[in-house]
Amino acid sequence: MKKIVLLRHGQSTWNKENKFTGWMNVDLSEQGVEEAKKAGKLLKEANFHFDKAYTSYLKRAIKTLNVTLDVMDQDWIPVEKSWRLNEKHYGALQGLNKSETAVKYGDEQVHIWRRSYDIAPAALEKNDDRSPFIDPRYQDVPSDYLPLTESLKETIERIMPYWECEIYPALKKCDQILVAAHGNSLRGIIKHLKGISDEAISELNLPTAVPYVFEFDDDLKLTKDYFLGDPEEIKKLMESVANQGKSK
Amino acid sequence: MKKIVLLRHGQSTWNKENKFTGWMNVDLSEQGVEEAKKAGKLLKEANFHFDKAYTSYLKRAIKTLNVTLDVMDQDWIPVEKSWRLNEKHYGALQGLNKSETAVKYGDEQVHIWRRSYDIAPAALEKNDDRSPFIDPRYQDVPSDYLPLTESLKETIERIMPYWECEIYPALKKCDQILVAAHGNSLRGIIKHLKGISDEAISELNLPTAVPYVFEFDDDLKLTKDYFLGDPEEIKKLMESVANQGKSK
Repeated sequence: MKKIVLLRHGQSTWNKENKFTGWMNVDLSEQGVEEAKKAGKLLKEANFHFDKAYTSYLKRAIKTLNVTLDVMDQDWIPVEKSWRLNEKHYGALQGLNKSETAVKYGDEQVHIWRRSYDIAPAALEKNDDRSPFIDPRYQDVPSDYLPLTESLKETIERIMPYWECEIYPALKKCDQILVAAHGNSLRGIIKHLKGISDEAISELNLPTAVPYVFEFDDDLKLTKDYFLGDPEEIKKLMESVANQGKSK
Repeated sequence: MKKIVLLRHGQSTWNKENKFTGWMNVDLSEQGVEEAKKAGKLLKEANFHFDKAYTSYLKRAIKTLNVTLDVMDQDWIPVEKSWRLNEKHYGALQGLNKSETAVKYGDEQVHIWRRSYDIAPAALEKNDDRSPFIDPRYQDVPSDYLPLTESLKETIERIMPYWECEIYPALKKCDQILVAAHGNSLRGIIKHLKGISDEAISELNLPTAVPYVFEFDDDLKLTKDYFLGDPEEIKKLMESVANQGKSK
């Protein structure tokens, strides 16, 4: 049986401060590192042996992957990184506190920006300090591809070619693949795999650093999906993520 | 100007206990992690921007690389791992304390095992717990290539094809490359680059986690090599490595 495990990064220093992060390159918090260690322990206990791993260009996902593989003693496996697995680009909201933004614009507008399928936040200027156009890590990406803001729809459209060309076909040769990425980039993959509607996908709140296992048969058809870990705890984690954008 | 930086891993838990490590997969000590952070700071201050990094299949080198790149905010660059960059295989000595071995066999025999060019320690049995033949990370390596012990000569013969086919030609496309590996695997590269004799290479004691910079001209000829950091401190570190095999 073939398996792909999706892993949302652990808590970042800005999750903790409740700021919009997007493509900002913030670190894991101490709690985030502990969450990644726990993910590694769960995966090790469940006897996972990954053949390959994928992650984004952002530190919080890369470090989640590094810590997880370290705990599993599987840090020697090949790892591919791609900007296409980055979080949704949050445009001009990047760096703003979510609660402050909610007070200023109202819960509903913030909810639209966070959760609507095809409405993107206000765009960054190309020469803004936060722009990917001035960040060396994106210098090899065709400039037509670089976002200054993104709706969830655009995020998913950016991710899917990487899923189609790299991750999914790798399952022909690999038995087990780990993808460490972000709430919204993983939504794209899950939407595709489970045929979730545009409306419903925005309400899927992935808990941080909880391994989400997808099993495939020999024809690479999805047969089953489940979270690893204690169901009660996972439910609480999902609720806490859903409440992050509220003003109180 | 093109640059390759060689970085020996930071102190491992077994360096600290003064044990022969070889292909045993031990972790960095806390001091080792701090050394890797310091290497990252030095490289960042010297304004290095790596295009690519290489490391071995062993945790102490992988983690040294991860910590160094994290501190530099360059953890998004592509990393290739290869068993060919592993430390010299120490055969049946792996796991034994260096001072105990020196008391038992005499300083000179231990010095021969550690430093002679073409004499390998006693070999492991193929089915020994410590054998690479039973370790999943080497399952894709042709069994003819897998060592049960190695002389420094054999270590270097194992490394050089990877240098020739992967690392050195990558310098055509990349301006700066980082190689995080081990005392003896790096000796092979340095011997080749600097034309050091079989006799002299054994006396080269690389300090742990001190970036060793090699500069190349546009024809990829070596023009200059130097350590980054305080020369007095580096000298002391090299002496302390040289003294590790002594019984007192």
